[in-house]
Amino acid sequence: MNNKLIELAKRRGLFWPSFEIYGGMSGFIDFGPIGIKIIDKIEKLWRSHFEKRHDFIFEISTPIVMPEIILKASGHVEHFTDVVLTCSKCGRKYRVDHIIEVEGVEGWSMEEIERYLKEKGMKCPECNGEFEKPYKFNLLMKTNIGPYAGDIGYLRPEAAQGIFINFRRLYELNGKKLPFGVFQIGKVQRNEISPRKGLYRMREFTIIDLEFFYDKENPSCPYIKEIENEKLRILRAENKNNVLELSIRELIRNEIVLTEWLAYFMYLSKEFIRSVGIDYNKQYFLEKAPEERAHYSSQTFDHMVITSDNTPIEVAGFAFRTDYDLRNHSEKSGNQLVAEKVEGGKVIEKFYPYVVEPSFGIERIFLVAIDAAFKEIKNRTILALPKVISPFDAAIATIAAKDELMKVAKEIYKSLKEKSLDVILDTSEYIGKVYARADEIGIPYVITVDYQSLEDKKVTIRDRDTWKQIRVNISELDIIKALIKNEIEFEKAGEIFKN
Amino acid sequence: MNNKLIELAKRRGLFWPSFEIYGGMSGFIDFGPIGIKIIDKIEKLWRSHFEKRHDFIFEISTPIVMPEIILKASGHVEHFTDVVLTCSKCGRKYRVDHIIEVEGVEGWSMEEIERYLKEKGMKCPECNGEFEKPYKFNLLMKTNIGPYAGDIGYLRPEAAQGIFINFRRLYELNGKKLPFGVFQIGKVQRNEISPRKGLYRMREFTIIDLEFFYDKENPSCPYIKEIENEKLRILRAENKNNVLELSIRELIRNEIVLTEWLAYFMYLSKEFIRSVGIDYNKQYFLEKAPEERAHYSSQTFDHMVITSDNTPIEVAGFAFRTDYDLRNHSEKSGNQLVAEKVEGGKVIEKFYPYVVEPSFGIERIFLVAIDAAFKEIKNRTILALPKVISPFDAAIATIAAKDELMKVAKEIYKSLKEKSLDVILDTSEYIGKVYARADEIGIPYVITVDYQSLEDKKVTIRDRDTWKQIRVNISELDIIKALIKNEIEFEKAGEIFKN
Repeated sequence: MNNKLIELAKRRGLFWPSFEIYGGMSGFIDFGPIGIKIIDKIEKLWRSHFEKRHDFIFEISTPIVMPEIILKASGHVEHFTDVVLTCSKCGRKYRVDHIIEVEGVEGWSMEEIERYLKEKGMKCPECNGEFEKPYKFNLLMKTNIGPYAGDIGYLRPEAAQGIFINFRRLYELNGKKLPFGVFQIGKVQRNEISPRKGLYRMREFTIIDLEFFYDKENPSCPYIKEIENEKLRILRAENKNNVLELSIRELIRNEIVLTEWLAYFMYLSKEFIRSVGIDYNKQYFLEKAPEERAHYSSQTFDHMVITSDNTPIEVAGFAFRTDYDLRNHSEKSGNQLVAEKVEGGKVIEKFYPYVVEPSFGIERIFLVAIDAAFKEIKNRTILALPKVISPFDAAIATIAAKDELMKVAKEIYKSLKEKSLDVILDTSEYIGKVYARADEIGIPYVITVDYQSLEDKKVTIRDRDTWKQIRVNISELDIIKALIKNEIEFEKAGEIFKN
Repeated sequence: MNNKLIELAKRRGLFWPSFEIYGGMSGFIDFGPIGIKIIDKIEKLWRSHFEKRHDFIFEISTPIVMPEIILKASGHVEHFTDVVLTCSKCGRKYRVDHIIEVEGVEGWSMEEIERYLKEKGMKCPECNGEFEKPYKFNLLMKTNIGPYAGDIGYLRPEAAQGIFINFRRLYELNGKKLPFGVFQIGKVQRNEISPRKGLYRMREFTIIDLEFFYDKENPSCPYIKEIENEKLRILRAENKNNVLELSIRELIRNEIVLTEWLAYFMYLSKEFIRSVGIDYNKQYFLEKAPEERAHYSSQTFDHMVITSDNTPIEVAGFAFRTDYDLRNHSEKSGNQLVAEKVEGGKVIEKFYPYVVEPSFGIERIFLVAIDAAFKEIKNRTILALPKVISPFDAAIATIAAKDELMKVAKEIYKSLKEKSLDVILDTSEYIGKVYARADEIGIPYVITVDYQSLEDKKVTIRDRDTWKQIRVNISELDIIKALIKNEIEFEKAGEIFKN
């Protein structure tokens, strides 16, 4: 990520490394007052794509700390690991794929890794020391629940398990009907070995896990018809050199995507990521090879975004979890997490529903959004965020710090707030600084009260992206609403002024 | 809490104990689809009282997992403890105040506790065994960050520390002006010894910590004048038998509340808690005695609510943290978390701001709200939540499951959603069941489409609290908005029908 953007992010209160006064700790970031507003709008936008337009998708909230038994049943205690290489000389620890940069190394046995290191004579990149025997390091953060030693708990690595273990209750709440989806938005922790990518590989982040349950004997998605000609860019596991552009219909017919629902959610994700400002041609779906997939998944696509410095970043994952989790939790808990087929009022069959899981990393979506929005034009910096995720709809400023102008500005502020516009009053600096600040944090419009406003009851509106200005009646300022929704063109919204 | 309410909460998807299929773990609860909607509205309501009406209070978000050094500096590693009594026979562990029910026991030394147990001959209430020596148990949940053993981390017990350690950056973002406030909403963990109160004493919950920074030489709150005649109910530490009813003016003049800002936030809290449905006379502020206060606080009031079964529950805390935290983190980190006095462009003085902290437990506010709202009238159950925190503004139903009625219901649903009303379509059951469900989850209005609707383009609206019905034109259904805001009376909103 662009260093200038990182500097801007600190200076303007978007985000910064956590625990800075104590020297920091990699894998953690703080979100400041502006950052959290953008994050909040990204979450709202996600809801508009995935929750609000369906009446069969709902939210729950379950704890971060979970008893060991659950993460044993889910397979995480055994499988949620990375291989660590420790330098015998300096003690530094590395994730194996940071040393052995060979595709598929995640699938190698400890012996294969050891042999490879020996054959190639690989040493510690920092001190040239020999590596100790590789070992598997579990990425779950461990704790103890309550005062009795041995009551092990883990911080959840995904929000999904809190949904699976509640399946039966959720199914009943949904009137024992399939399909339906349940999501939760919340923090998860993953004890990354060496989060050198800083902003993208976090030890704590906000996930949205949506678990979608359906009957595998009735697997069709009713929305596929509407979107079957839409195209997705796909990178197949067997050929990672060529991005294919395939229609939803082709993806399903050719069994490239194994279920209709997964294809449907991938399409929604493409549209969602586009709406945060990422062009379609900067996105693709990367099919994971079997050894790269999580232990629970029969098919996985990572939704990738190519950043401004050409780095591919995973912003979402689409996993076909089949009945892996419901079956495991049923067996381990002794409770039947099943759906039922009923005929004539009688249960004639019990079965495990299938699950597809779209999963999103909110901070990463935030990061690719601001990365794509960052622009330097002439000697100014602009965060050209889509208006729907801008921290504010508009800032209200005055041409000078005079009481009579401030009074009008405050009235405008109040009246726009009452109209549900998300506005900020910024009258503390001279107007050039207000414009610069608005540009840098991505506020699309600045409304300025000047001396003439006192007479003609008009104010100027300045557009972030073109720096053009128009003059409009104060009484007609809710035109901002239409501008935010792109319902009218800026230049047509008022009398045009040269900047 | 009423057992019938707990049963309703499970059945209707408000909340339930976490990890049920594995036998559960006390101190954790899950929020279901309806519960999370109510929680979400309570948070919005909090924002309207504390954030939105001020332009000097803003939000940030910092991690749950924190390096040990921070919680050492804050005093939590040393002081955030409870004393545990272990039975030498059965091994059960108890929090000391669950065994020794004497006021002030929190302040006793280990020797005093031991002596008291011996003198009174106190034994394990379960097996009558002797107690082992008491010891201090730290309530922080501990973990390890990354692969190096010894990189201790703790789950935060409060969101406050993430704000304090960022003070300098936040102060700069605020243009180096005081006063200002910063809050965060997020999960915290406290490793309670024996959370026997189940729903109220949680091991993981959502906190809102608001840290308000001001210059102690300029301590006045400009809003005090507007509210100085407002009264608060106060229980003083020195006399815990009589609730005093005192005006804000009296509280400040008589130095019962030590700072104006603390008094101001206590007033806002009273109004906030009233708006979730708790009568003024069911609230009071409990002053904590010195030995009951947290280690960082020079004065503390707990905002208490008396539940339907006459239990006082703490829903918020008001702590006067002075410069305790900023001073400690400055000394331990070597970074100066100070504000500056400037004259003629030069820094003439550096000083630690003072801090007052309002802190809210969201789940507890949710619980007292539904407890107060729970009503049994005739043979029906109603959750008479204030409309502003109801899970939905209205449900839309049909008198029968006929396509032509469903079609109209769906159109109404769509059009009200577009008008930003929070509505739900509930056409799956016969109308009596829809009404019962709406009553039980607190939806204030049910809009019903019947056969006549097809001809006269009118529908009935049923009121949750009175079960009265009115008939209105479909085209005028946005009167729901006015009804929600209590801008018009129900009976005046339309043609009245007998139920």
